[in-house]
Amino acid sequence: MFIIKFGGSVITDKAKECCFKQEVVDRLAAELKHANKEVILIHGAGSFGHILAKKYKLNGGYKQKKQVEGFALTQAMVQRLNNLVLASLHNHDLPAVSIPPHAVLSLSNHKLSRVDYSIFQKYLDLGFMPVSFGDVALDKKLGFSICSGDLLVQLLAVHFKPEKVIFVLDEDGLYSANPKDDRNATFIERVTVKDLDKLTTRLNAHADVTKGMEGKLYTIKQIARVGVDTILLNGNVHNRLYDTLKGKKVRHTIVQGE
Amino acid sequence: MFIIKFGGSVITDKAKECCFKQEVVDRLAAELKHANKEVILIHGAGSFGHILAKKYKLNGGYKQKKQVEGFALTQAMVQRLNNLVLASLHNHDLPAVSIPPHAVLSLSNHKLSRVDYSIFQKYLDLGFMPVSFGDVALDKKLGFSICSGDLLVQLLAVHFKPEKVIFVLDEDGLYSANPKDDRNATFIERVTVKDLDKLTTRLNAHADVTKGMEGKLYTIKQIARVGVDTILLNGNVHNRLYDTLKGKKVRHTIVQGE
Repeated sequence: MFIIKFGGSVITDKAKECCFKQEVVDRLAAELKHANKEVILIHGAGSFGHILAKKYKLNGGYKQKKQVEGFALTQAMVQRLNNLVLASLHNHDLPAVSIPPHAVLSLSNHKLSRVDYSIFQKYLDLGFMPVSFGDVALDKKLGFSICSGDLLVQLLAVHFKPEKVIFVLDEDGLYSANPKDDRNATFIERVTVKDLDKLTTRLNAHADVTKGMEGKLYTIKQIARVGVDTILLNGNVHNRLYDTLKGKKVRHTIVQGE
Repeated sequence: MFIIKFGGSVITDKAKECCFKQEVVDRLAAELKHANKEVILIHGAGSFGHILAKKYKLNGGYKQKKQVEGFALTQAMVQRLNNLVLASLHNHDLPAVSIPPHAVLSLSNHKLSRVDYSIFQKYLDLGFMPVSFGDVALDKKLGFSICSGDLLVQLLAVHFKPEKVIFVLDEDGLYSANPKDDRNATFIERVTVKDLDKLTTRLNAHADVTKGMEGKLYTIKQIARVGVDTILLNGNVHNRLYDTLKGKKVRHTIVQGE
């Protein structure tokens, strides 16, 4: 089984509220269908979630009543995005079933407190593709906060120990330095967690409550610790996802499980 | 706290696939807002769910692989309906949060096997309006089946023992006989469960996997057994819901809790 994350910046225009990249998602859905693997799919909230979540300061927890409205609006917005993703998957004959974090898990000061893993397993067992996503969530300590798609990938990967975790990004993978700032930056094809600690990476310049690549590296380290490889690849390039799922060598970064 | 069910035939045109009654839902949302009560809202799946569920025979359980696709499509379709309901509630400043049955409960041969009641309570405690709906669901015995909105109302009412349960229908309430067939049919304002057993009622002529009024009477009896009153009222008539929530006397049927 693979756990695959469609990054929010791949499936939406992160700088523009509620702008869904239909063609990209349709192509990725076709690649998934063609590869014919058992998959749990997670997608980011992108501009359907981050802009509202930031406006209402949801990640800081419940501080004023106005945020209740903000939480409700954000939840509905990411559900709208989820509907668009589901429709694309269904159009490609993938039996996707939505598992919304705000209904199946609780956090406690941003860390996992309780999650129903069995619901994912039961749908897998019946031949479905469980689809979850970056979402608002209940938080025991804070009232509510954010469950990012990356946190979800981490939790599910540590629990299910999939064959591989794949992050579908809008860049090819990891570099030794930010290629925008540093002409000597080189692309990393394969790296251990130990080496990862020495590297700096491109950071996301757009509004993002989940801190872009910095948070992702933390996630990847947790996944490596349970012995699972993580692959980062560019979802904007045709067949990178398909080829990777089929074990073909393409431009991507592999972070080796320990 | 009130548990209110918006019937599928009130919020959709049951004979026509995916036809949402925007004006009716907007008016009911306005009445809810105006009444300012603590509410768990359930809505039927109406033509967004029943037609597909029937086509793929989902209520009979998992018998062939094609149904997996049918389950996924039905789930996405009722989620689309739920999005429309949420949007209307949010437009009326109601902090509605979606709790989809297919993610939070399991059935076993159509009966409840497991449900996370705490998620409803936690959202209520924070000031949200939990919104759930008729949905497909996992079924231990059958693989999957249907969790009707009525079953959901029953489960939640028995657990939470609300002040009242209100069924918002497309008819005024219960009659002593089917008023279409029988000129002597009289409207019932107040009735006990014992008397209910003696009555026949209008049955739904449209495609409906959840058996219309017949199933509803069973539900209402279970609710009465825990001492909770159920009110049936006409959602197509302006302010019937609002007036009922405010304790005013309007045309509706009260089934007394025992």
